[in-house]
This record gives sequence, C-alpha cells and structure tokens, in this order.
Amino acid sequence: MSDLSSPSDDAIPAGKVAQALTQALRGALEAIGFDAGADTLAVAYSGGLDSSVLLDVAAALAAEQGLRLLALHVHHGLSPNADAWLAHCAQRCAALALPFHAERVALDKVADSGVEEAARLARYAALGRLCREHGARLLLTAHHLDDQAETVLLQLLRGSGLAGMSGMEASNTAPALLGDEATLIARPFLAATRAQLEAYADGRGLPHIEDESNADTRYARNALRHQVMPALGRAFPGFQQRLARAAGHAQGAQELLQEVAQQDLARCGHENHLLMPALRALSEQRFFNLMRHWFALRGMRMPSAAWMQEMRSQLLEADVEAQLCVSHPDGEVHRYRERVFLAPRRTPPDEGLVLRLKWNGEASLAIAPYYGALHFDRLEQGDARPGFDAGWLRAQTLQVQGRSGGERIKLAANRPARSLKQHFQSADVPAWERPFLPLLLAGDALIFAAGIGMDCAHFATGGERIAIRWQAR
Amino acid sequence: MSDLSSPSDDAIPAGKVAQALTQALRGALEAIGFDAGADTLAVAYSGGLDSSVLLDVAAALAAEQGLRLLALHVHHGLSPNADAWLAHCAQRCAALALPFHAERVALDKVADSGVEEAARLARYAALGRLCREHGARLLLTAHHLDDQAETVLLQLLRGSGLAGMSGMEASNTAPALLGDEATLIARPFLAATRAQLEAYADGRGLPHIEDESNADTRYARNALRHQVMPALGRAFPGFQQRLARAAGHAQGAQELLQEVAQQDLARCGHENHLLMPALRALSEQRFFNLMRHWFALRGMRMPSAAWMQEMRSQLLEADVEAQLCVSHPDGEVHRYRERVFLAPRRTPPDEGLVLRLKWNGEASLAIAPYYGALHFDRLEQGDARPGFDAGWLRAQTLQVQGRSGGERIKLAANRPARSLKQHFQSADVPAWERPFLPLLLAGDALIFAAGIGMDCAHFATGGERIAIRWQAR
Repeated sequence: MSDLSSPSDDAIPAGKVAQALTQALRGALEAIGFDAGADTLAVAYSGGLDSSVLLDVAAALAAEQGLRLLALHVHHGLSPNADAWLAHCAQRCAALALPFHAERVALDKVADSGVEEAARLARYAALGRLCREHGARLLLTAHHLDDQAETVLLQLLRGSGLAGMSGMEASNTAPALLGDEATLIARPFLAATRAQLEAYADGRGLPHIEDESNADTRYARNALRHQVMPALGRAFPGFQQRLARAAGHAQGAQELLQEVAQQDLARCGHENHLLMPALRALSEQRFFNLMRHWFALRGMRMPSAAWMQEMRSQLLEADVEAQLCVSHPDGEVHRYRERVFLAPRRTPPDEGLVLRLKWNGEASLAIAPYYGALHFDRLEQGDARPGFDAGWLRAQTLQVQGRSGGERIKLAANRPARSLKQHFQSADVPAWERPFLPLLLAGDALIFAAGIGMDCAHFATGGERIAIRWQAR
Repeated sequence: MSDLSSPSDDAIPAGKVAQALTQALRGALEAIGFDAGADTLAVAYSGGLDSSVLLDVAAALAAEQGLRLLALHVHHGLSPNADAWLAHCAQRCAALALPFHAERVALDKVADSGVEEAARLARYAALGRLCREHGARLLLTAHHLDDQAETVLLQLLRGSGLAGMSGMEASNTAPALLGDEATLIARPFLAATRAQLEAYADGRGLPHIEDESNADTRYARNALRHQVMPALGRAFPGFQQRLARAAGHAQGAQELLQEVAQQDLARCGHENHLLMPALRALSEQRFFNLMRHWFALRGMRMPSAAWMQEMRSQLLEADVEAQLCVSHPDGEVHRYRERVFLAPRRTPPDEGLVLRLKWNGEASLAIAPYYGALHFDRLEQGDARPGFDAGWLRAQTLQVQGRSGGERIKLAANRPARSLKQHFQSADVPAWERPFLPLLLAGDALIFAAGIGMDCAHFATGGERIAIRWQAR
C-alpha cells in the first residue's frame, strides 16, 4: 500500500488513486484469507461518498476476479431524505448489476446526544442480520485514514483506555455489534485519505448522496470533523497518518496486555473464581489488567481506575479470614475464604414470595425471581442416583419459596437430617449466593433445596424416576 | 485533590483555588516522601504566570512548615527580554526572602524547528546542575492539566508510542534530562487547570512576565495551544481532564509492558545476548516489547514498527545455522549460533592503519579506532598467570594494527602455534567483532591479539610482570 502513503499531495491523479485503492482492497482480501470460491463479500453502502467509492472499487475487482459481491443498505429514517437515499442506492446497484439488500430500522426515542450512538448500534445490528441472511462472511466498510484519526481523537477526548486509543483495526469480528462471532468486518481503505477517495469519486464522476446530518455539529464526530480537524490540519499537516501510527502502537500494546491477562487468568483462576494467594503476587498494573479482562469476559462494564484501586486495596488489605463485598454498577466482587468471585448485580426475590406450579414433564422450569431454573432429569433404569417417582411428582402442587428459617433436609436414609444452614456451610456455599437458591415444597414437605439437594422422604426405588437440580442462569 | 476537579467553572473563587493548590502541593510532597528535616525543595521559576503561582504557593507552605525552599532560573537568551526576566525573578525572590539561583545557557545554533527542543534540553540540564549545586533533591515544575493535555496531543500528533501517550507523570526521575539519577521532578499542579492558576494570580495580584515567544506559532506547542486547543475546548468542554485520564491509562499500560519486558529479558537473555529458542516462544507483540526494552537499555533509538517486523521475520525465518545481520541507524542486530547480539554502529579502522606507541607504565591505553583500550595489569608475585617483563615491554616500540592474514600466535609453551582464525573459531568470537580486535606487535613479533591472548615467546618467569588484555568500550 505504498501508494497510499503520500496523502498531502494536493492534486491526486485519479488513475493512480484507483490503482492504489484496488490494491488496498486486494491486500485486505488476501490478509483475511478471503476464499473467492466459498465466500461472499458484502459492502456496507450508505450511498455517501466513501461507501460509493468502496462499492465502485469492489465491483470492478469482483467483475475481474469473479467474486460474489453484494451491497447492503440500512435505512434508519433519521433524515427526511432516507427514502431517496435508499432509492439512489438501489438504482446504482441495478446499474452495476449487483445484488442490493436493505433493512429499515426504527430508532427508539433517545436524547439528541444519544442519537449518534443509537444509530450506529442499529446500523451494525442490521448489517449483521443482512450478512447472515445473505450468506456474506465478510463485510467491507469504507473507513479511511481521516476516520481513523477522528476515532482516535474522539476516544481520547472521552478519556478512554488503550482499547479506545487503538482506533479501528484493519479487520476484526464484532459479535456485540453484528450479533454473531463469524462475520468479519474489514476496512481496506484505512490507510487512504479522504482526499484520495474524493479524487477517485471526481475522476470517475461517481454519483453519491450528501448526508446533511454530517454538517450537524451537535454530533461529537461532526464537531470534531468541522471544528477541530481543520485547525489540526493547518498546524500539523499530515497529522492523520501520525495519529494512525500512534493508534497502531496502542493496538500492539493492547494485544500484549490481553495475552498477559489470559496467562494471568489461567494462573490465578480456578473454576468461577480467582485465588487470593496468586492475586497477591501480581503487581498493581497486572492486577488491574487481569480484572479488566475478567470484567469484560463477564460482559460487565469497565469500572473506573479509582474504583479498581479501591477494590484492590480492599481485597488485599482485609484479613485473610474476612469476607468482603465491593459493589460495582453491574455487579459485586466478593472475597470469601481466599477466593474472589464476580457476581452480577441481582435483586433478591421479594420476601415471602411463593410461586405455585405444576410439573407436567418439562425438562426444566425457569424461576425468574431466583435467576435460574429447576431441571427435572429423567433417570435411566438402573441409575444409582436417587429420584422422585414421576407420577407422584406430577400429582403435586409444588411451591417455590425462600428460606424462612428452621427448615431441615435429609439427603439420604443413612444420613442425618440437618438444617439448611449446616448444609450450606459444609457445601461451602458463599453467603451472597444463598438468597438466590430457592426451596421446592410439595404441600408442607420440603423436597428439594437448591445448592443442597433432594430430601430422601419421597425417593422412589423403581419406575420412572426424576432427579431435580438447580441451575443458576 | 477533589477541589481541582471542576475546571469548567467560569468564575473561580481565588480563596478556594489557593486552598486547592496548597493542598495539591502538600499531597505531592507527601506522595514522594519529602523529608522536611533533610531535603531541600527547588522551584523551576521562569517568571511566567504558572511558575509564579507555584513559587507563591510553595513559599507560603514553606514558611508555614519550615521547609527549605529555593528558586531556580534559567536564562537562555532567546528573548531580548531575558535579562529583564532574570532581574524580575531575582527581585521577586528577594521580596519573598527566598534564595534565588540562576544559570545562563547559550544555545548552539539550531534550525528554527529545533529551537524549542534545544531550549528545553538546555533548560533541564541547567536545572539539574543547579539542583546538585544547591543540594535540592526535589525540583517542582508548574505543569498543569492544560499542559498535560497539550503534551499528550503533541505526542499523538507525532505518532509516538505508549510512552508518549502517557504524558507527564506526577513525579519521576529524569537522568537523561537532569544529568543524575537522584533528582526527582514533581508536578503538583498536574490536576489543576490553567484557568485555576490564572484565578490564583489574579486574586493575589501576582506579578509575572509574559514570554512573547509563547505567541509564536512556528513552535509546535504554541500552534497547538493557540489554534487547536480553543477549537477543542468549544466542541468538547473539559476535554483536558479526559485526555489526562486517557494518559493515565497509557501510563498504567506502559508500566505493565515494562514489567513484562524485564521478565522476558531475564528469561530470554544471557550475558550480553538473547537466546533464539526463548525468542521463538514469544508472541509477536511480546517480542517487539522485549526488543524495544533492549534497545532502550543500550541507549539506542527506537526503530520503526516496520523495521521491527522485518527484523523479527529475518531472525525467525533464517536457518538455525545461518548468521545474519540487520542494520539499524544506531547499530546492528546479529544472529550467530542461535544467539542474538545488539552491536552499536561502529566504523571499522582504516585498512593498513598502524598506531605506534610506547608503554610508560600506564594501566591502560585507549585505542580509539578499535573502540576499546589495552589494559596492562601488574601481576602479583606468585601469580600463576603469564606476563611480559615490564622492563622489556617499556623498551619496545609497540605497534597496534589489524590482521593482514597468516598471523599465528602461541599462547603457551605446551600448546601449538595456531592461526588467528583458528583461535577466533575455537574461542567462538563472532565474525562482526573481529575487525575491532587489534593486534599488538613488538618490532615484527606479534605479542598480543585482542580476543585471543598473549604470545608465550616473551613470557617472563620472575620480576615485575605485566599481563595485557583488551577491553571493548
């Protein structure tokens, strides 16, 4: 892509640009291992200048190499002109003899300041659906060097961490945006300048639409584009490339931090928790890095640096025997017997809540207030595990409720009946989990306690037998 | 420092600011463990608004707590007003009853674009000298939040790596700038805004000078300050704090990368080289991180990402048996027998160069064209190591020269005379080191070969004996 590296030329020869952009697209397809025989290529085509150039370049390459190419368009009705844009894109694709697919999305009412982000999320979700529907494994977007510079600056201006400073990658999957793990987004023009794309469009007389919302400086990106970037360009010509270089450094660092976090998680983690002795051996930054990784794995929002620091002090400074809980908007960090747990934020069931239900042979019944489900496993003939008689169970009116104190359960004929509290202690069930472990009663009789097991009083010895277990969500 | 966290207030009450700034200074002194009994505090005092505020706040705190405080001023004559500034600063310190020390530095002629950086280097070097001279272990500078934001942006606009994006630390040593390892720079106002410092100066009617060069937009920082920052401030009010937060994230990441590099160096390194088998086990980013660390340790400039990538491919892809050399502006990376060496860039001695010298009892003689020195070690009575007779050695006219081919040396009476090439091979001396290993002759006789040893023909058995060895610089 060396032809993309002289972005400050004032007059850019259109032919040379076309060559460079085609080469960039070829390189991108090669880098992600695009298989012309098996794969289908999609272009996110809004009809604006950038994506019109991308579609044009891709159409030419597809014709030359016999690639399957389609154009995808999202109509989100933010502009009164959205219908006209859709029509323009459809026409243009007809002229290029390319398959064209569009989806209309409706934005939930959001504050002005949130429109930009909501539209972005809706757009990517729709593109993901369109890709799956039409069998495209690769989605191309027309992001270019100026976009990259804007992205990096915007993230910095939000005070974001390394992931933000890294800007956009040349290609990546984006399950949270697209809705699946498989679809790959690639950005072949990330090293090309906006001026180069404009030169291409001019040179080819390319029809494209102007999105009037691009001039609306209430949107942060537009404010940056129209008010800040020109000032930067005057004082630091060619700064976009240097910003992109800085983003590349951040990307590399971020990759390494991820690798270290994975190794540290393997070393410090066990099942669903981390081990305090291993955590104590980590340096401060390494501890933070591991925690950020753990939070991300659990789909929890990234806490602030100050919160992290406070959490670390609490975890490290409390007595070895002490239990503690640090709250986070999305959950809680618990330390219990030298183990650290990350629990999502849950509202405990209302006190006195009783759910009545009948079992009609379902494999499981979701119990929403307890964030989990009762599972009814059919035991094979000869299975040594205990179970209830299926017929008897069907005949009962079951009750799901919390502990009220004093309940006892006997897990086997040869073991004593013990209080739930004793059972919880010997099974090492952390205190904060207990409110989310329901009891199951048949009439007045406790027949099952989540986290503990079934009462032996109604165990059957033959016939169709059912074992009950609890599964947290 | 919570009082420093509302920077966008238009009217800032001067009393509250004074309290907040004093508190910030107190916090900084505490954080670095300033010992009022033993340590002396210095303020870098240019006479401009920022450092005038810092000096004023520090003087009040010093009076209250009985701290030893001094003001340091650097006169670098860039402005026709520099003499007036020096006089102003001296007067102000006299009024505050503070010791005042100044140093005049002359800038070598440099291009316009380099003036800013040259002045900065000269200023810090002078401040380092002044600190050492007057016994100040701690140097305070008046850098504030707006400076931090500018620094981060400037580094990004230069495409710098994580270290640049990290901006300024709250405190650090800076041996390369100050000339020693001990002096600590602290920046107590790093969380305060320029507006707060202005409010303080206004409130106290603080006299200060205006540096007219601050308006010169040929200097990158001024261009940023006057052309870009106002546009950013309009579109993203309070962005300085968020940029500083991003810098904090980069600082944390940089700290972790350093830790990982040190561990990887310990694992992959041996004496002065790295071991290929260990390097092969590192991920790409981890390899780059280790190499950057290694380059920095050797005081070599950071190569570009593209160079690093190329170097890695060459190192990893060459046959195990192959030797290879990758050139860098400051040196060369050599792979030799599964070991990797980093050699500084050196010009080999001119072919045919012969240096004639007499030994007059010196402990060593520097041999500049070979980047090293001949050492003449006096052997103790009874030392079993071989040596030449000191009197004989003094009487010789010695010649230092390179190999011309065919030279042989005999290291001991009971060992055969062998060619230098055979000696180099059996001593495992890498090929690229050999041109920098001189021979020492007495008349026509080879008496010593650097990297090999002394010829036994002139070994003495008693009296004052001298062993010769070579030490590369």
